[in-house]
Amino acid sequence: MKKKNVGILIFNEVEVLDFAGPFEVFSRTRIEKGAESRRSEDSAPFKVFTVSVKEEIIIATGGLKIFSDYTFKNFPKIDILVIPGGLGTRALLNNEDVLNWIKSVSNEAEITSSVCTGSLLLAKAGLLDNKRATTHWGAIGALKSINKNIQVVDNRRIVNDEIITSAGVSSGIDMAFMIIENLYGEHVANDTAKYIEFHRSKENV
Amino acid sequence: MKKKNVGILIFNEVEVLDFAGPFEVFSRTRIEKGAESRRSEDSAPFKVFTVSVKEEIIIATGGLKIFSDYTFKNFPKIDILVIPGGLGTRALLNNEDVLNWIKSVSNEAEITSSVCTGSLLLAKAGLLDNKRATTHWGAIGALKSINKNIQVVDNRRIVNDEIITSAGVSSGIDMAFMIIENLYGEHVANDTAKYIEFHRSKENV
Repeated sequence: MKKKNVGILIFNEVEVLDFAGPFEVFSRTRIEKGAESRRSEDSAPFKVFTVSVKEEIIIATGGLKIFSDYTFKNFPKIDILVIPGGLGTRALLNNEDVLNWIKSVSNEAEITSSVCTGSLLLAKAGLLDNKRATTHWGAIGALKSINKNIQVVDNRRIVNDEIITSAGVSSGIDMAFMIIENLYGEHVANDTAKYIEFHRSKENV
Repeated sequence: MKKKNVGILIFNEVEVLDFAGPFEVFSRTRIEKGAESRRSEDSAPFKVFTVSVKEEIIIATGGLKIFSDYTFKNFPKIDILVIPGGLGTRALLNNEDVLNWIKSVSNEAEITSSVCTGSLLLAKAGLLDNKRATTHWGAIGALKSINKNIQVVDNRRIVNDEIITSAGVSSGIDMAFMIIENLYGEHVANDTAKYIEFHRSKENV
């Protein structure tokens, strides 16, 4: 099978679980169920990688040091774009290079998604205009303030209105499972949830 | 307040969520509730860092590249030791340097804990002798085979028998919350869970 490329943006002060949750879920998904299939990439439907603006050690919130796989200069085609959140999004809200990159990758991608305050960046890039969207409960006001025509939803864990946005931090794990369920069926999503022993929030709140 | 040092071992082929889950939970805990308190370290009860054998880029499962804060040669005192799992634990089962490090740090630590197959390393280090313990559902047999006198539990998410072991991957997030609840009360754990929008598995299964 042709694997889909999942590109996750990372930046200084990105919230750890915002990017690590979807990274874990997408990278450990297998079409073939069980634990054995996770020992190889044979039935892995995704190739997951991180992208940063430039080559440097990225310091996530709490001090975790990560090194991206690619930069804005050399990243491969992205089928599923994931924009995580964190306090570091604030510094990027006026970074035209980052906003233009998000807009142009989103235009080519099959799926554009955000976790937590990653939606602030999608909003600033103009991708949420006239759409329903959500974010971390502490940033609902911030999202509304970016553009009055965004229909900000404050009582759902995941909002899918062409662009997929999720609520705070751990919601990104549920969002990744929802994307997998839509692409490959509930059994593939649930089998992967069983592998990582994650209890999905089915009620979407 | 004096912060407790949380040391998380990382190694090649460590499972991403095994270390990133507890990293997120401990590093985002604040005694003062709400979202604002997370913007500073003022009421943070923990200082969280990663430790690897030596200075090198660590490649986690799925290819995530991380850089440790400390090595076996220069790590500070560890109050809470977290040993994550992943396929990479297998290569460490006969690594005397790693097993001796775990044993000696555990002896000095207030709390020793593992996520997923991290318990295989605790078992090999002799720390689970005559204790109840758990691991990922796919590794129950492997844990039993290390030492017949370990009382392997296969139906609990967290097992606390002086040493704290948790089941697969995401269970480590619940384990971190349990440790926080025991140290600082349920309100601190639940407020942090609310901040990262994580639904704790209260039933412990």
